Amino acid sequence: MRAVDIIIKKRDRGELTSQEIEFFIKGFTNGEIPDYQGAAFAMAILLNGMTAFETADLTLAMARSGQVLDLSKIVDLAVDKHSSGGVGDKTSISVMPMVAACGLPVGKMSGRGLGFSGGTLDKLESIAGYRVDLTTEEFKQQLKEKGIVLTGQSLDLAPADGKMYALRDVTGTVPSLPLIASSIMSKKIAAGAQAIVLDVKTGLGAFMQTLDEARKLADLMMDIGRLAGRKTVALLSDMNQPLGGAVGNALEVIEAIETLCGGGPADFREHCLHVAAHVLMVGQRANDFTAGRKLAEKSIADGSALEKLRVLVQAQGGDVRYVDDVSKFERAKYVEVVSAPRSGFVSQVHARGVGEAAVALGAGRAKKGDPIDHAVGFIIHKKVGDQVQTGEPLFEVHASDETKLTEARQAVLEAYRFNDEFVSPLPLFYE
Amino acid sequence: MRAVDIIIKKRDRGELTSQEIEFFIKGFTNGEIPDYQGAAFAMAILLNGMTAFETADLTLAMARSGQVLDLSKIVDLAVDKHSSGGVGDKTSISVMPMVAACGLPVGKMSGRGLGFSGGTLDKLESIAGYRVDLTTEEFKQQLKEKGIVLTGQSLDLAPADGKMYALRDVTGTVPSLPLIASSIMSKKIAAGAQAIVLDVKTGLGAFMQTLDEARKLADLMMDIGRLAGRKTVALLSDMNQPLGGAVGNALEVIEAIETLCGGGPADFREHCLHVAAHVLMVGQRANDFTAGRKLAEKSIADGSALEKLRVLVQAQGGDVRYVDDVSKFERAKYVEVVSAPRSGFVSQVHARGVGEAAVALGAGRAKKGDPIDHAVGFIIHKKVGDQVQTGEPLFEVHASDETKLTEARQAVLEAYRFNDEFVSPLPLFYE
Repeated sequence: MRAVDIIIKKRDRGELTSQEIEFFIKGFTNGEIPDYQGAAFAMAILLNGMTAFETADLTLAMARSGQVLDLSKIVDLAVDKHSSGGVGDKTSISVMPMVAACGLPVGKMSGRGLGFSGGTLDKLESIAGYRVDLTTEEFKQQLKEKGIVLTGQSLDLAPADGKMYALRDVTGTVPSLPLIASSIMSKKIAAGAQAIVLDVKTGLGAFMQTLDEARKLADLMMDIGRLAGRKTVALLSDMNQPLGGAVGNALEVIEAIETLCGGGPADFREHCLHVAAHVLMVGQRANDFTAGRKLAEKSIADGSALEKLRVLVQAQGGDVRYVDDVSKFERAKYVEVVSAPRSGFVSQVHARGVGEAAVALGAGRAKKGDPIDHAVGFIIHKKVGDQVQTGEPLFEVHASDETKLTEARQAVLEAYRFNDEFVSPLPLFYE
Repeated sequence: MRAVDIIIKKRDRGELTSQEIEFFIKGFTNGEIPDYQGAAFAMAILLNGMTAFETADLTLAMARSGQVLDLSKIVDLAVDKHSSGGVGDKTSISVMPMVAACGLPVGKMSGRGLGFSGGTLDKLESIAGYRVDLTTEEFKQQLKEKGIVLTGQSLDLAPADGKMYALRDVTGTVPSLPLIASSIMSKKIAAGAQAIVLDVKTGLGAFMQTLDEARKLADLMMDIGRLAGRKTVALLSDMNQPLGGAVGNALEVIEAIETLCGGGPADFREHCLHVAAHVLMVGQRANDFTAGRKLAEKSIADGSALEKLRVLVQAQGGDVRYVDDVSKFERAKYVEVVSAPRSGFVSQVHARGVGEAAVALGAGRAKKGDPIDHAVGFIIHKKVGDQVQTGEPLFEVHASDETKLTEARQAVLEAYRFNDEFVSPLPLFYE
């Protein structure tokens, strides 16, 4: 078998066999197949597509390109939850304690933020001492003993994906559904997931800007899950405006904690209950959505979810007092409440605009390795569909210096659109 | 400007500007743009195509990626003739002396054979002492003084093309009309050609197997010529069966010499007169095809073309006695005349089959740098349309050992097809 013949087959719209895909990914991972052949292959896939079978083979080949975590001796059924990323998405920090409190052990490896999307690891590091660098052994041990883990990748999961992603970024081969879907699913499978709940975001602040694109991606990932023998459920949720109110690392963790205490913004609370219900169904702790949702609600009402968050923070070396006293979180030097410049109905809070303004404040990083400021960010008070009067609080800016504050205020004001007529709120979920 | 944005533009079927193409080719040549970006770019071009304007820009960018030979102070109009390659194609060796004898100075840089196609340099090296490594200065000096040069590339012409071709070979991006056409034309332009006659082969032994493909390539190259300000004429000629009778280095040079003496196979003689007439027209030595053809015929009849070959051989250090006494050429140890296995009309002499059999005999090279045997090859006596009787001479094998002879005989017999009914001869030219 020769790499060039596999490229030629895909170039000519042929359907690749499992063996051909395995051969290519293996060779690409160990360097026998050079980057230039990987680049030509990726461009041929982007332009000519792949069937669901090929995409599933690609996913499994990438998952097997490094170590594959085996959690079967630790939990009955390893469930993972994945969000395609967005602005203000602190869902994992609330949902994982909720489902763990319902008796479903969950261990998750998260990533850092890049660009206008935040990352769960960065958010959790707002809690003093919280470790995101558990070893594989620590991960397994904690999952077994505490039933909850939320850390970074402890091992080189799916190295083929890492290498391919870096190459795609510089060769114009990022926006390909088979390549995106296999990238996400390969890491989940390598991390030991036997069942997966996917939260696919769509809208102005999501990678998939249209519902149609998001649905195609969701369908393809469910196909991969089915063909790879992993029960997979995909939800399509809105990312036209930020999720909840808080955008920024410490601010988001505080909102996640408030939500576990029964408070928090209504939309974020609803989003978490919905996702948690699906995770509990997939994890066989609930027979249907209603039962799952009731369990999740109960975990908030009886304080068991909050208790699970304490367990998580303590297990990973974090200062557990942050959970019970959110005033311990680092606060930004400057906080300004910005008033509505006019009366009317909010018709847009551009998620990407807000996300980029948060990066400019220091909440995110423009490139890998940049330092971040945990304290800065925004609290969005008025969202799409809300009626406002001139002078009413619209949003808050939390900033470390006055120049940045001024720029951020301007940027978020520009993210807002108003309407004289009534505007319907955005749905949380589309399907 | 960023390379990845140029790749993305072509990926999305955009039309690239001259500046974008120039930027990409410049960066690719000097190594600032890595091979993996070159590979993704080539695949995007192959799958999404390029307009004639883009292809002309690509051609000029590649031509300018290295030194561009300026022949304007040496000749009124530098004319080049290019064949897309085939089996038994010794046209340059006859045509160049013919047109030079008609007063049109011609300097040509040729290549070596690779795969089943022979190369003019390899053929000329059958003449003891003939140098194919003239320096640029020697090339110019000889063109000025003798009016004829036939050598290898003395300088790194169109280095972008060399680099891109090597990359295309291993990334499945060879069969793209814009990439093929720009590759050919960039080298001609870099070698100083102001007018170009293209002999595009089509058929079983050509890169372009169908007339339609060959016509598209010819049209595109004429478009490039027009947009680049080079008068360009393209001929479409047959390469279903070998051209002429001889296949193999020394055997082909002998046939070229015989043709200049007024002999040689009728089809090859006709082919040469046709090409020479077009070169003379393009070179402004003849007003129309008939006049050009008459001049070419005269150069054979009066011995002036043969004299120009002597001048060429002598100027490049070759033993000129070979021209007047072809028995001086190295002969193969074994020569076998193979008889027709049946009576009938020849309906096929598969050019590629014969070409590959010649490589197996040692006349060509499977990979760059392999040594070759100048003496071995075939003489094809019966061609498509010829009537044969069982036992009549069909072809000759010239071989260096008996095993190879047996295998070659079998391979060429398999290249032949016969028909009971009358078969028309193949046309020499299609358009």
